[in-house]
Amino acid sequence: MMPVCKPGAPCACFKYMRTEQKQRLLIIGGGFGGLSVARYVDKSKWEVVLVDRNNYHSFPPLFYQVASSGLEPSTISFPLRREIRGRHYRGVSFHFGDVRTIDVAAKKVVTDYETLHYDTLVLAAGSTNNFFGIPDLEKYVFTLKSTTEAIRCRNEVLACLERAALCRDDALRRRLLTFVVVGGGPTGVEIAGALGELKRYVLKREYPSIDPGEMRVVLVEGSSRLLGNMSAKSGEDAFKALGSLLVEVQLGKVMKGYADKVLSFADGSTIAADSVIWTAGITGVAIPLEGTDVRPARGGRWAVDASNAVEGVPDVYAIGDISLQTADGYPSGLPQVAPVAMQQARCLARNLSRYADEPMEPFRYCDKGSMATIGRNRAVVDMRGFHLSGRIAWFAWMFVHLMSLLGMRNRTVVFINWIWGYFTFSSGLRLLMRSDRYPLRSYWK
Amino acid sequence: MMPVCKPGAPCACFKYMRTEQKQRLLIIGGGFGGLSVARYVDKSKWEVVLVDRNNYHSFPPLFYQVASSGLEPSTISFPLRREIRGRHYRGVSFHFGDVRTIDVAAKKVVTDYETLHYDTLVLAAGSTNNFFGIPDLEKYVFTLKSTTEAIRCRNEVLACLERAALCRDDALRRRLLTFVVVGGGPTGVEIAGALGELKRYVLKREYPSIDPGEMRVVLVEGSSRLLGNMSAKSGEDAFKALGSLLVEVQLGKVMKGYADKVLSFADGSTIAADSVIWTAGITGVAIPLEGTDVRPARGGRWAVDASNAVEGVPDVYAIGDISLQTADGYPSGLPQVAPVAMQQARCLARNLSRYADEPMEPFRYCDKGSMATIGRNRAVVDMRGFHLSGRIAWFAWMFVHLMSLLGMRNRTVVFINWIWGYFTFSSGLRLLMRSDRYPLRSYWK
Repeated sequence: MMPVCKPGAPCACFKYMRTEQKQRLLIIGGGFGGLSVARYVDKSKWEVVLVDRNNYHSFPPLFYQVASSGLEPSTISFPLRREIRGRHYRGVSFHFGDVRTIDVAAKKVVTDYETLHYDTLVLAAGSTNNFFGIPDLEKYVFTLKSTTEAIRCRNEVLACLERAALCRDDALRRRLLTFVVVGGGPTGVEIAGALGELKRYVLKREYPSIDPGEMRVVLVEGSSRLLGNMSAKSGEDAFKALGSLLVEVQLGKVMKGYADKVLSFADGSTIAADSVIWTAGITGVAIPLEGTDVRPARGGRWAVDASNAVEGVPDVYAIGDISLQTADGYPSGLPQVAPVAMQQARCLARNLSRYADEPMEPFRYCDKGSMATIGRNRAVVDMRGFHLSGRIAWFAWMFVHLMSLLGMRNRTVVFINWIWGYFTFSSGLRLLMRSDRYPLRSYWK
Repeated sequence: MMPVCKPGAPCACFKYMRTEQKQRLLIIGGGFGGLSVARYVDKSKWEVVLVDRNNYHSFPPLFYQVASSGLEPSTISFPLRREIRGRHYRGVSFHFGDVRTIDVAAKKVVTDYETLHYDTLVLAAGSTNNFFGIPDLEKYVFTLKSTTEAIRCRNEVLACLERAALCRDDALRRRLLTFVVVGGGPTGVEIAGALGELKRYVLKREYPSIDPGEMRVVLVEGSSRLLGNMSAKSGEDAFKALGSLLVEVQLGKVMKGYADKVLSFADGSTIAADSVIWTAGITGVAIPLEGTDVRPARGGRWAVDASNAVEGVPDVYAIGDISLQTADGYPSGLPQVAPVAMQQARCLARNLSRYADEPMEPFRYCDKGSMATIGRNRAVVDMRGFHLSGRIAWFAWMFVHLMSLLGMRNRTVVFINWIWGYFTFSSGLRLLMRSDRYPLRSYWK
């Protein structure tokens, strides 16, 4: 009779030699990548410790819906402690903390609360905004790379509308009602579409003192097309869909700076806007590795080999947005998207769980396609060479995103919100949750 | 044939003489009181302007559930602009703004964004925390009088748990795990019960490195019983229910101060606690009335006559928590609860809509009872002399609160959250939504 591994019980299948003390696998980041490694790695071999600066897993593809008041932040966030209670994570422990230094010589990670030893380290901290060194940009633009950034964007957009509703100065009102989205990738297209819907469907009903014609939503993209990572057909469909939502799309326009609430472009043109939403660049959150000469490669990412080991550093792996892995067809590295992180995580988990004498399995990316949505009933999907758009693509987009959310409660509530929004053309979530302690932008008085 | 008043069309029923220009009724505060006045007042007679510092109506009875991660803030908040789109509010306009000064001589209200003229003014700004002049209390305790305060309380409680989970210093860990609730009224009892449930049901499963026995929830009340405004039986039932949730209830204990994370009491005893939740006092948000000698009465409330007119100030009314109205059986004023505000609002709306020669109708308070809940399956209800407790009272509590929420979407989502929480003994909402811009308490490092 075959011995059976029971969760929580000592491993009886002799897949590998048990040591008295399990080795510690430290995972930095509880996103798509980090959580998948924790889930699929063999917990009878590893003592798994997951470190994250937030106590929740979040869902970046829907941050734009938080920013546009379509979803509440809590429905696209899931407490990590709750998740690791599940049977797939038995033996994983969660440590709250923001990693400050990583010492690969001493095999130690220092967070703001403690020092953790590791035997093997997985870097899965993801990416953040890249402002390409444009001065002061970080201070004045709104971004969508975390839940709190999305909430801030929501509050500031609502504050502009409220202020415009009271404003009798024409120039100021126009500036308050000009929303510029920089970057024509999926996030840029999606948030511009959501703002377009606000202009087309909501403004007249909820802000009767604002003339919807005065609100401008401008999407600026440096290259000659939208959705550069998707098919040309998708870019064209997105362009048309945004046009129907009254979004002005300006292609081939390279942003130079943003000062005194005026955006300037390389071609000499300018746009006066109180709100600029920056989706044009990301960079890996590369914490320096002390005790080695290895430095992050291009885009704040760690160059990794085919098995996701950071090149030149023993026992350190990197997956997801923070890793830079080249592959056939991807000479400049795999894209920084969730499916790559999840697939790398599963491959790495298998490699970390293998017999000691088995060779490492090289990672192979399986591109299942990509999608973006532009308002109600409109989306574009590219899948293995074939292209979908319109309502079918929109349903596909909704289904995929709903299924990718963690937690049944979240799925239910997101589904209700979407159905509600679909039939009422409205949202009960336009809440400007300002507080005395946490004021809006200082100049918003 | 009787002429019929159509909403939005000029009034045809000649209930009063139409003037060319409608008089402006300015309502400060979109809570239970202010919103009810806007709803029930005759909009063909009045141009109604509603001013609020938030763009949403909120539901104070459930703030404690936000603080204890039971509900998301958005489900107990409802955008005012969305609400006044409804047919009952046709003709009401919303102005976002925090009122700075009220000049009753010039009949002007100045907000942080504009100056508004009024013909008749309704003060319905509600109440805030009263710290009774205890030094620095405001800085260090957590409060539950607004959505943002509740979110802050949630974040700080979760931060204490996360930090305790990593802490190896016994004294510090005990201090981090001591939660003191000051005030044995409904809010105090409810938040203490929710923290007791956290200790009893959640800690062991989600924070395996914390010994639940180390967590202390203490409810301190200065008088000799809980729920002073309810029946003695309710106070006793609440006391027992809290005991079963492992909450230490200390009666007759008057707080003197809170410094260096140590609470001191009049009897000389002390409790070291990182988290103190203050529910022991409220005061009206009385903005001074310029151009008159009238000053707020006791508790920051405006003394009003039987028709809710502020005594000594023409054309100014006050309702709800901010008003001080004595009545038979209430020599020190009506209680500061939602039913009083709503009943006063309806009476005032009728008085403002009356024929010019009709007399003002005096307000009569109809006490429909009061209720409080203490964790799952337990509540106390006092209703016209009879008392309910246990599961039936709990269902009654849930039904009344669900029905009082604004918006069907909110009701649905709250209902789902409650059902989910009931069967899973857990919550998907333990989210510490910290942001770099908005740090936790400075000493929390």
